[in-house]
Amino acid sequence: MGFRATPRVRSLHSFPGITVAQIDEEVAKLLQLKAQIGGDDGKHQFVLKTAKGTRDYNPKQMAIREKVFSTIIGCFKRHGAETIDTPVFELKETLTGKYGEDSKLIYDLKDQGGELLSLRYDLTVPFARYLAMNKITNIKRYHIAKVYRRDNPAMTRGRYREFYQCDFDIAGQYDAMIPDAECLKIVHEILSGLDLGDFRIKVNDRRILDGMFAVCGVPDDKFRTICSTVDKLDKMPWEDVRKEMVNEKGLSEEAADQIGEYVSLQGGMDLAERLLQDQKMSQSKQACAGLSDIKLLFSYLQLFQATDKVVFDLSLARGLDYYTGIIYEAVLTQAGVATVSTEAQNGAEESVSVGSVAGGGRYDGLVGMFDPKGRKVPCVGVSIGIERIFSIMEQKAEAAAEKVRTTEVQVMVASAQKNLLEERLQLVSELWNAGIKAEVMYKKNPKLLSQLQHCEESGIPLVAILGEQELKDGVVKLRVVASREEPISL
Amino acid sequence: MGFRATPRVRSLHSFPGITVAQIDEEVAKLLQLKAQIGGDDGKHQFVLKTAKGTRDYNPKQMAIREKVFSTIIGCFKRHGAETIDTPVFELKETLTGKYGEDSKLIYDLKDQGGELLSLRYDLTVPFARYLAMNKITNIKRYHIAKVYRRDNPAMTRGRYREFYQCDFDIAGQYDAMIPDAECLKIVHEILSGLDLGDFRIKVNDRRILDGMFAVCGVPDDKFRTICSTVDKLDKMPWEDVRKEMVNEKGLSEEAADQIGEYVSLQGGMDLAERLLQDQKMSQSKQACAGLSDIKLLFSYLQLFQATDKVVFDLSLARGLDYYTGIIYEAVLTQAGVATVSTEAQNGAEESVSVGSVAGGGRYDGLVGMFDPKGRKVPCVGVSIGIERIFSIMEQKAEAAAEKVRTTEVQVMVASAQKNLLEERLQLVSELWNAGIKAEVMYKKNPKLLSQLQHCEESGIPLVAILGEQELKDGVVKLRVVASREEPISL
Repeated sequence: MGFRATPRVRSLHSFPGITVAQIDEEVAKLLQLKAQIGGDDGKHQFVLKTAKGTRDYNPKQMAIREKVFSTIIGCFKRHGAETIDTPVFELKETLTGKYGEDSKLIYDLKDQGGELLSLRYDLTVPFARYLAMNKITNIKRYHIAKVYRRDNPAMTRGRYREFYQCDFDIAGQYDAMIPDAECLKIVHEILSGLDLGDFRIKVNDRRILDGMFAVCGVPDDKFRTICSTVDKLDKMPWEDVRKEMVNEKGLSEEAADQIGEYVSLQGGMDLAERLLQDQKMSQSKQACAGLSDIKLLFSYLQLFQATDKVVFDLSLARGLDYYTGIIYEAVLTQAGVATVSTEAQNGAEESVSVGSVAGGGRYDGLVGMFDPKGRKVPCVGVSIGIERIFSIMEQKAEAAAEKVRTTEVQVMVASAQKNLLEERLQLVSELWNAGIKAEVMYKKNPKLLSQLQHCEESGIPLVAILGEQELKDGVVKLRVVASREEPISL
Repeated sequence: MGFRATPRVRSLHSFPGITVAQIDEEVAKLLQLKAQIGGDDGKHQFVLKTAKGTRDYNPKQMAIREKVFSTIIGCFKRHGAETIDTPVFELKETLTGKYGEDSKLIYDLKDQGGELLSLRYDLTVPFARYLAMNKITNIKRYHIAKVYRRDNPAMTRGRYREFYQCDFDIAGQYDAMIPDAECLKIVHEILSGLDLGDFRIKVNDRRILDGMFAVCGVPDDKFRTICSTVDKLDKMPWEDVRKEMVNEKGLSEEAADQIGEYVSLQGGMDLAERLLQDQKMSQSKQACAGLSDIKLLFSYLQLFQATDKVVFDLSLARGLDYYTGIIYEAVLTQAGVATVSTEAQNGAEESVSVGSVAGGGRYDGLVGMFDPKGRKVPCVGVSIGIERIFSIMEQKAEAAAEKVRTTEVQVMVASAQKNLLEERLQLVSELWNAGIKAEVMYKKNPKLLSQLQHCEESGIPLVAILGEQELKDGVVKLRVVASREEPISL
């Protein structure tokens, strides 16, 4: 884009003492002026694009999206969940201190006078704010809405700056692991229902991680940062994770190696039992509490017939600060998702998917951060990684070359001759009034062929053809578009 | 909120030459510091509220919202519409120059590096951007999403800064007034379907307004500003509108009085015919084109059986700049909506509702503003004022004291004795697997009474009661909650 030198710009040269701030200000003024006069030639100088990291959904994508939503919402409703909605922006201070290092990814609104606002970063913090604000101590709710992160977009892999989250949470003081198990059951049902191929749900517990760090000799103030390094194990081999711990985070080699032994472990209820007997691990009260809960969780999952997909995995860490107990993450292990091969410590080679499609955990402290008196409301929840699921479904539809219908029209009201617009409008109106999905072409005299072509292109199964003879006889010809049959005169 | 003087604050006093900007900057730094350390006492200093002009939707409101959406979407789908979605923010320049004076109400995002972004102000401009960007020349689509305006909120009247818009638009080069008539038919169907009481749909045409201004002697450069004064006729009596035209906008008294005569006119196809013969009005080619189209529109509306609610009203102006042809607005005339009484010029007193619940019109130039070559895509559309409809529906539900169910649970799995948690979990899981909406309490040993109370509170119709005897017999007691009947043992 050329930038024409204006007298205003030239005059800047006459101020040798100008500061950078003044320059910025002048530039901003000029650009604003430029925008007001409509760009370089005063017309049509728009950049025709959506904001970085965002996308439109076209009708085909919307049709797929609606199908996915309907499966997921169906599951949430089957489990008796209510739904709520919250504004897209929150007071900035509501989000402050909830996301650790990721806070830099929050979108702030411009200060235009009034409150300082930020776009929501997830649905969990607004949910906690909602509970505290309305003094709600018990709720089972889902919330499907867009959230915003100024992250590096990787749109081909379904990572956007604006993306849907799809959360189910249970708030309330209940007996241990019952709501937690229901969350995992829900993940199991949804991923099975969406037919995305095989999957695994990894579970762990923040208390087991913290206990493990303690018995391995990680200093208290390094728990969080070491935890976020462990979190990278699904993307990095152990050697690199170890290097980061020792070289960047200053952990002793001995502590790192001890962690390395634990985080290679995977199993079920038996592993939890074994670790409860583990000489080192059993020294930590926290770890023991976590391990007992894992055992209880597996016993409930057995009743829910969901253990086939669930793995207790000590390498699962999850980044967010607010988790306090059980954590979990579901990954697809097939379905054309990019997979990496890792060498498990027991020597067996395993195919581990990098495609996380759901995650969650228990966060008993978050609501208390909002309550003036710090009253806690225990919560556990799960977030379905819906954008990645959309991407997979879109790829599948593409690969299968299946025709996705974007409307539900049942009948096209067409005419074989000219001058039948009024008759067509009258008939289509009667169909609408009768609750039938119907369309008519917005032309006075459309050709029959173009009317039939429209039916074929958009998958309309029936066409009602008006002609002079039919009008005389008081009937309408109804033709099946696919077979060209005309079985019915009404 | 107390603000403790810190050493940092005191040190400011030692700079007598400080500028306001420096003060502001210091204040901002300190407040940021304060936020980082967590407010005044380092804890729980959040303001528990949503941003000004916004609200949460609780489960009851969501249940009503879903019902309204389902009626509206049902209508859009009946008319063969596809749906699209666009990001919540657009490049700032995409919105520039589209909203006239209202541009000041646009929410901008903070410049955090990268593109300058604004929250969408409506769904029409993003739609036009979408069409131009994807070179789409034909589409019939609906879009339901939230839009953002930094307006003065009037939340009791359903006016928010974040609110849903619900748009249906037809883009494409078609024969005159056919898609326009379908838009009005849709408004007719939706308002009838939502059962909001009686309503009226006012129609007018931008070309008639412009022609009228021309023949009444309004100077060309005053068309838009006089038009926005006329737009106030639904809220202000003619005398005040006239005053604004003459005193504030500098229009001659003679011109104002001539406008006054025209804008008092209401009617149907007959009025359009009469005005086509009107000595003054018929001098304007523009007006005549508009009047002929109004006649054509009414003839199509007759075929659609929709004329009973439609009024040709020359006082209808509508604020937005981008309209080029027909415009319309639907108002409720009953349903407990606040109404004002105006003295119509013919002496008859009329009750005019201030509750506009839908509006739209033709905008043939907007897409061309985005196209690099200025290629036009004619469009006509309608926006349903969904927030006002929500408010009315909520008030109606409140007034009728009807119990709005917020979940769809069919069966509660309960137990009569202790130690039946496992059996309950197993049964509820079987129900879920069978696609039945079911719930269980998250307690090891809940009291039967509290389980039944939960059913009554949330309207669950059936309860499956497990007891030791039933388990022995291999049956489950199924009780109808309302009648306490136990008709079935399964």
